[in-house]
Amino acid sequence: EDQQTTDDQDNPYANEPTRSPLLVPKSQTPFNAEPPLSLLVDNFITPVEFFYVRNHLPVPDIKESEYELEVEIEATGKTKTFSLKDLKTKFAKSGVVAVVMCGGNRRSEMNAVKEVRGLNWGAAAVGNAVWEGVRLSDFLTKLGVKPNESCHVVLEGYDADPTNKPYGASIPLTKAMDPRGDVILAYQMNGENLTRDHGYPLRVIVPGVVGARNVKWLNKITISKNESDSHWQQNDYKAFSPSTDWDNVDFKTAPAIQNMPVTSAICSPNPLEKQVKIVDGCMEVKGYAYSGGGNRIIRVDITANQGKSWVTADLQQLSDGENVGPGRHYAWTLWTVKVPIEKGQKVIEIWSKAVDSNYNCQPETFKNTWNLRGVVSNAYNR
Amino acid sequence: EDQQTTDDQDNPYANEPTRSPLLVPKSQTPFNAEPPLSLLVDNFITPVEFFYVRNHLPVPDIKESEYELEVEIEATGKTKTFSLKDLKTKFAKSGVVAVVMCGGNRRSEMNAVKEVRGLNWGAAAVGNAVWEGVRLSDFLTKLGVKPNESCHVVLEGYDADPTNKPYGASIPLTKAMDPRGDVILAYQMNGENLTRDHGYPLRVIVPGVVGARNVKWLNKITISKNESDSHWQQNDYKAFSPSTDWDNVDFKTAPAIQNMPVTSAICSPNPLEKQVKIVDGCMEVKGYAYSGGGNRIIRVDITANQGKSWVTADLQQLSDGENVGPGRHYAWTLWTVKVPIEKGQKVIEIWSKAVDSNYNCQPETFKNTWNLRGVVSNAYNR
Ligand SMILES: [Mo]
Ligand SMILES: [Mo]
Repeated sequence: EDQQTTDDQDNPYANEPTRSPLLVPKSQTPFNAEPPLSLLVDNFITPVEFFYVRNHLPVPDIKESEYELEVEIEATGKTKTFSLKDLKTKFAKSGVVAVVMCGGNRRSEMNAVKEVRGLNWGAAAVGNAVWEGVRLSDFLTKLGVKPNESCHVVLEGYDADPTNKPYGASIPLTKAMDPRGDVILAYQMNGENLTRDHGYPLRVIVPGVVGARNVKWLNKITISKNESDSHWQQNDYKAFSPSTDWDNVDFKTAPAIQNMPVTSAICSPNPLEKQVKIVDGCMEVKGYAYSGGGNRIIRVDITANQGKSWVTADLQQLSDGENVGPGRHYAWTLWTVKVPIEKGQKVIEIWSKAVDSNYNCQPETFKNTWNLRGVVSNAYNR
Repeated sequence: EDQQTTDDQDNPYANEPTRSPLLVPKSQTPFNAEPPLSLLVDNFITPVEFFYVRNHLPVPDIKESEYELEVEIEATGKTKTFSLKDLKTKFAKSGVVAVVMCGGNRRSEMNAVKEVRGLNWGAAAVGNAVWEGVRLSDFLTKLGVKPNESCHVVLEGYDADPTNKPYGASIPLTKAMDPRGDVILAYQMNGENLTRDHGYPLRVIVPGVVGARNVKWLNKITISKNESDSHWQQNDYKAFSPSTDWDNVDFKTAPAIQNMPVTSAICSPNPLEKQVKIVDGCMEVKGYAYSGGGNRIIRVDITANQGKSWVTADLQQLSDGENVGPGRHYAWTLWTVKVPIEKGQKVIEIWSKAVDSNYNCQPETFKNTWNLRGVVSNAYNR
């Protein structure tokens, strides 16, 4: 018999990569997982090993030598194809230190207030890495693409559903063409080739923008008058008023999430810890903070008494310099603070809130920012 | 006797311009005034007549023919001088529709929660106008200024204190050099020459950025490694944690406000109105919303029942096009909504909250964003 009848033949998830045991799965097929929160604050650059994984479809298995990137410019009808070697040799290598954060990061906290639909992510669906490859603004400029305020860069992955429809997303052309936008066609993460789970051999990194637009296993780029028509661009990754429910939602009324709002999370001590260390009347608390759109975190305030008093944290972040500046802060901020704890306090509740360079801050609670998909879930972390 | 002994000679405020009776003064010397809130929503472009006025010093009286702008590039030591005619004839005329908003707009609401220092502005220390003049990015590029992530554009006015120290501010060079930043050396407002109160004959318009950096009566531009050393840049127009008071504040620890956070205000009906019109069980409510940094307002939600249910407002705003696009929305958004009012409700309390294109939203209350200077006062408007 020539015909194989194993399960594997019909199972699109038969050829998934091996994963680190440090990752805690939220779903197996597609694979979605985040690391334990406390690991995040140990490294300014998140190791690939436990960088969260958010897949929407089975992981493609692509040979670098066979890889092709197609580029189409709708206005001219022109199409061009690039091998990975083309990208590595015909264009300068550029890099960026940038966060990738899932649109559903911290969803579980919003879900606890009132049920939302989506994977029940904790606060670790985020990582901060060094991404290197070809700067999209260089690439498109070389191809003769002209700036335009209302065009889009449509991105398609090699990952596809059973009907062969690929994962897709788009970003504004303005972001792609801005050299300070730092959009990278990345073939390296933290100095190594991308792993399969992170888009090998080529993905897009869109600093400041929700993870969902950072398309992995990039197959095609189209410069278009229209946004991507994919499910994920049109009918997902959008937020609505708390009074919008599944009976009255009209996805056309909200813009696709691009830049992420300001957020923060407490990573250590673990919120469930039974016993915490108090030294000189203070507890040491650590976490991360981040704001999309290149906005810098300027302050993180912590309270152990429901806001009666706030302690301002020490920040670890990149300084303005050659590739970092106002509106170009794409890495995260790690913070540490010693919070005074009242003697004899049995239950300790800590809140964190971050402020960014636009002086935007997190909302206090999830009540008035609740949205049916549980995205951009950025209230104070408690 | 040659010597004059009138009060006027010693009074630096003797030569102030005449002002519209529509403006309600907050202080006379220097002159600071805002219009009645309800006037704001009648015009997408705020008439000059009742555009709020925020002066820090006496108003200079400058003849256009004698006006000079000095430009210094610190790195090269080069200095150049321009007449207004130079600016009007040697450079293309560019324009932008942009909000100018006082850093203290809505301070009175924060002040009502706990006392802050500063002029007790209502929610009308804001206006939206058409500004035309020379694009600063064109101007600096022509002068040979090169982009740099950590340099500043220091701006000095012709207005000065008794010791001859001028009003001063600075903005990041990155903002000034970005063609999409739309910084304008403006000689026209709403199609006419600037009025004296708004900076005649030349002021800087820095779209998306706090009013205080939109220096009027512009005297000098310096490209510098350092921010302006003025009082207003260094020791004012900064925000701190609610636990920072006048005894422990260190102004060096906070960045000078540049981009303003997302905000909104209810302009009509007047909050003190005794009788409101209810038609078909609904009350019509109007207001403005705005977010700094070029972020677009994507939604305004209104509640008449403390957030139990929210109604989403209709928005009037500029669309993406030739000079408006993602991250380049510098005009405000006017909004209108019909809010259902329960029958027999005696006291009606309306809240407004806006969401911007980064999905940032306003904080719920002033309690946890209170700051000693009462700036960036952007909680829900009630
Ligand atoms: Mo995501
Ligand atoms: Mo101001």
